[in-house]
Amino acid sequence: MSETRITGATRLYAILGDPIAQVKSPTLFTERFARAGMNAVMVPMHVLSEHFDAAMTSLMALGNVDGLVVTVPYKARAAAFATRLGKTATAIGAVNALRRERDGRWTGDMFDGVGFVRGAERKGHAVKGRKVALFGAGGAGSAIGCELVAAGAASLAIVDPAHERADALAARLVRAFPGVPIAAAAAMPPGVDMVVNASTVGMRDGDGLPADLGALDPGTLVGDVINADAPSPMIRHAMRHGCPYVTGREMFEGQADALMAFFGPH
Amino acid sequence: MSETRITGATRLYAILGDPIAQVKSPTLFTERFARAGMNAVMVPMHVLSEHFDAAMTSLMALGNVDGLVVTVPYKARAAAFATRLGKTATAIGAVNALRRERDGRWTGDMFDGVGFVRGAERKGHAVKGRKVALFGAGGAGSAIGCELVAAGAASLAIVDPAHERADALAARLVRAFPGVPIAAAAAMPPGVDMVVNASTVGMRDGDGLPADLGALDPGTLVGDVINADAPSPMIRHAMRHGCPYVTGREMFEGQADALMAFFGPH
Repeated sequence: MSETRITGATRLYAILGDPIAQVKSPTLFTERFARAGMNAVMVPMHVLSEHFDAAMTSLMALGNVDGLVVTVPYKARAAAFATRLGKTATAIGAVNALRRERDGRWTGDMFDGVGFVRGAERKGHAVKGRKVALFGAGGAGSAIGCELVAAGAASLAIVDPAHERADALAARLVRAFPGVPIAAAAAMPPGVDMVVNASTVGMRDGDGLPADLGALDPGTLVGDVINADAPSPMIRHAMRHGCPYVTGREMFEGQADALMAFFGPH
Repeated sequence: MSETRITGATRLYAILGDPIAQVKSPTLFTERFARAGMNAVMVPMHVLSEHFDAAMTSLMALGNVDGLVVTVPYKARAAAFATRLGKTATAIGAVNALRRERDGRWTGDMFDGVGFVRGAERKGHAVKGRKVALFGAGGAGSAIGCELVAAGAASLAIVDPAHERADALAARLVRAFPGVPIAAAAAMPPGVDMVVNASTVGMRDGDGLPADLGALDPGTLVGDVINADAPSPMIRHAMRHGCPYVTGREMFEGQADALMAFFGPH
């Protein structure tokens, strides 16, 4: 590990959320900043809902804060603080990172989805042309769905027990990517060659799969947002059927690469 | 150096000031926290005057901020944010540290002066009974003057080219310590056996002494707030006359001990 020495000249990055103790970004980015030769750290900030707006405003006004990462439950609220939104953030109406530009303005974008695409590519699996079933239409699902279509997925079926949430995400993505077959679905449709769990199912002990996936063809690319030490139910299912897979940890690392590029010299 | 690994569960301490890049507290306290087995760091925050109040309010509302250090030019303004003030802070109307209590309230106190007394004691020099000439009636001078009298100084003469500032400090301290001979003075009075520079004279290349000190008796205890690598003009003057002395660095270390006790388990 590179040595971190905080000085008066250290530049700050913060991750805001509630809860916050579980986040892994402070360790990961502080190490990456050190390796990149930056005198910078990322610190966790536990922000309650009623203080979020004031916290954002105050942090953005500090002279040595260069970037913010926003996690649950603030990704949609944080979008309002950016002067300028990236393409994914515009499509889904949420950001998970903001950076200060040289002119003092703030650019926000959403990197939750790009990590998955990068994680797949790193393992040699292209997303382009895939017919995708996406489970979960929340923040992570929105970002992943958007990035998969942007990366050339041939079609996207969105499955969420909260049907109106699946419908709303489908409508948003259809607006952003007219012409691509994108729709909400009640269950996994036939003929898909990529399945992604973007729900929290699999996070708790005893959880199973987010839906009935049946037997997977070994050509099916499987992804899961669950970032745990042991393989999640979804990843175990992929292993049993000999499918290639991208874990939550691989997504997180893919996202970290993208965020480092976003936060680095620009 | 103990290893610092910032995690999601790391507790935050921040030092607020303008400018901020020169402060040494982030390095010192982050190392001390690690040595004390605390998962905590101190980070610098560059706060402009118009954002100070909002920054204080937002930082105190964060769930994982346990303490704040305040430096130039905010020590007087910061006092208003404490629910409860310590004795020194009450006497001089300024704080340089605030901590969150278990009940969520904030206690503020001023440690700029106690470092000097501790630094002197560490070197075996008692303050009790000393007749003191103090140069500089600003924030540092106020804190040091207060602590010297609290530690039993026999008398205190306050010298500052801004006479009204010396008068105001003398009046404040007389109120806090009725019966002790405390007064503003135009120059170093005769018969003192302790001289302390609490002005910024000596900080810049080419600076001399804060006032004409004449030849010092070798029994005179000399102190200087200037925290530089090379001995300051005041400390060189003490060396030339064979006087014991307390440097700005020793004061800073003495203050750090007191602040660690303030920020530690309570």
